[in-house]
Amino acid sequence: MKVAGQHYRTIYPVQDGAAVEVIDQTRLPHEFATVRLSRLDDAVRAIADMIVRGAPLIGATGAYGMALALRADATTAALEEARRRLVAARPTAVNLRWAVDEVLSAVAPLPVAERAAAAFQCAAELCDEDVASCASIGEYGKQILGELAKQHPGRPINVLTHCNAGWLATVDYGTALAPIYKAHDAGIAVHVWVDETRPRNQGASLTAWELGQHGVPHTAIADNAGGHLMQHGRVDVCIVGSDRTTARGDVCNKVGTYLKALAAHDCGVPFYAALTGPTIDWEIDDGLAQIPIEERGADEVRWVRGRTAQGAVVSVDILPASSQAANPAFDVTPARLVTGLITERGVCPATAEGLRRLYPEK
Amino acid sequence: MKVAGQHYRTIYPVQDGAAVEVIDQTRLPHEFATVRLSRLDDAVRAIADMIVRGAPLIGATGAYGMALALRADATTAALEEARRRLVAARPTAVNLRWAVDEVLSAVAPLPVAERAAAAFQCAAELCDEDVASCASIGEYGKQILGELAKQHPGRPINVLTHCNAGWLATVDYGTALAPIYKAHDAGIAVHVWVDETRPRNQGASLTAWELGQHGVPHTAIADNAGGHLMQHGRVDVCIVGSDRTTARGDVCNKVGTYLKALAAHDCGVPFYAALTGPTIDWEIDDGLAQIPIEERGADEVRWVRGRTAQGAVVSVDILPASSQAANPAFDVTPARLVTGLITERGVCPATAEGLRRLYPEK
Repeated sequence: MKVAGQHYRTIYPVQDGAAVEVIDQTRLPHEFATVRLSRLDDAVRAIADMIVRGAPLIGATGAYGMALALRADATTAALEEARRRLVAARPTAVNLRWAVDEVLSAVAPLPVAERAAAAFQCAAELCDEDVASCASIGEYGKQILGELAKQHPGRPINVLTHCNAGWLATVDYGTALAPIYKAHDAGIAVHVWVDETRPRNQGASLTAWELGQHGVPHTAIADNAGGHLMQHGRVDVCIVGSDRTTARGDVCNKVGTYLKALAAHDCGVPFYAALTGPTIDWEIDDGLAQIPIEERGADEVRWVRGRTAQGAVVSVDILPASSQAANPAFDVTPARLVTGLITERGVCPATAEGLRRLYPEK
Repeated sequence: MKVAGQHYRTIYPVQDGAAVEVIDQTRLPHEFATVRLSRLDDAVRAIADMIVRGAPLIGATGAYGMALALRADATTAALEEARRRLVAARPTAVNLRWAVDEVLSAVAPLPVAERAAAAFQCAAELCDEDVASCASIGEYGKQILGELAKQHPGRPINVLTHCNAGWLATVDYGTALAPIYKAHDAGIAVHVWVDETRPRNQGASLTAWELGQHGVPHTAIADNAGGHLMQHGRVDVCIVGSDRTTARGDVCNKVGTYLKALAAHDCGVPFYAALTGPTIDWEIDDGLAQIPIEERGADEVRWVRGRTAQGAVVSVDILPASSQAANPAFDVTPARLVTGLITERGVCPATAEGLRRLYPEK
């Protein structure tokens, strides 16, 4: 994807692999800046502080984090410690655990001296695979949008999305937004309702920004508005990402996703989750009972970052001084509310059978 | 209710009835200030700019707005013009139309010279009636909370509310919050989950503030979080207000209410709307088809007001400069999702029969 005309991935090696750079997503949409990650600590901080976010990009950062750790100390003890610290940085992210373990199993059999280089190689391959997977999701999802366009000729297809499952959440293309980019590029008229996605406003600050960079028509809305729009036929389809999907198709995603799925179900609007294979947690079925939900700090609810009329980027406190806040970061959408899962291998129903048909090796 | 220990209503006459004062709700929770309304224009602006908001308080302000207009010009032409301008200030508010028409029909038969004084008298009576109605809603709703407290001994009852239907939305007590205040004062332990209620953050800025002033335990949450909390049994009951209720019990309320009602229904959590009789629009049944939803300005989505760490109250822009925003202000919750309506005459099912039993004269 392009930023001001220049092609970027969201994570890429620099200095002959001695470091990697990422886009600082906490500073968008008002500032575009990259951050250099040179050590394990940098990678852990980038994940925990959400300088990088989005399941696939967190995984890629975790993989490079392992490589950066091994460059400093490639002993087996250091390898295990790096794995532990990276996985703990975002406990809900199944991709993170998967990517870190991919690196671990690739390098553990090797002599200590060869491990760092092999880890960088492994991380680079995981990134390339993610790009290919997202491109494939885009092609499959484009077909869904194309079918809707045939049903509603002469007007754009209205897609509602929540949070940011765009190219900023992945290495390139995105998951939920990949079908939108592919459709837009193929000449299918698409308009996106962008949930602002409180408390961190990833929709307002990231999704709106990247859609704007790509020239896709979009309108930001409060998270409260989507139900009303669906009641009045102003949403043709919802597409969201997933941080973790269970073997039977329950979708854990940014908090508030469940509410939109309920409205879509109530209003007869198709509701899709777009995700890559590594996001599927084959070991669990019941997302509501089995997925621990990360509770993040109350300050994310209290403080809102934005730009003043004078151009200064500041945070403002929206709560009375004496009030508390709670901040569950994700929720689980039961599979019964999900029309289908858009994966790099095709679209399937959100069922154990559907997923097994696409991933028979699991 | 009290502000810093002093009793206040949200609207009250001053200067021997030559003007009224209201609390400027756009400046809460960071600043407490009152605004004097001396002319019709002031009342229209207070309603349109949401210096006052909440169906009952809008109605009270509309009634005093008529009185202020008549003080300047009590001719029948001026009377009609005042009615037109006040009703147009917030088209969704059925209380506003009701209150303005109450004043109109009280003063229209009178000689021109007597109209202004009669209008002030009528407005004062409407305010007193609203206070009595809210107190009664509080008593009926307290019984619901008391029953829940018996079912869950030894812990507080968790109530989720959306927007502000508290004393700031009425002349005193509130509608949705009246049961909470009455229960709290009666020694029933209550904890309130306060939806922040984007885009204007009435929950974060008003509900949290007034609960805090009264000492009621509460926790602010992003609007996205309520579904997750209900899925995990952390909400015992939802109570919201209503800007307009149809004859069959459809509830038009702040946008996002529908999403919470869906989650409550899905999770088996009782969902109540609290409202006074004048909020019921007996002329319509199908809220979704028949209630026009006010579209407010995009700037309410774009700009978030709060206090910086240095103490300055400023607004910040959260969107990319090139992005648009849409701002539907209300949605309609179909009666099928509403457990019951809490009114000044008692609690009834959200059905035409239930409402007719409470209001047989309609």
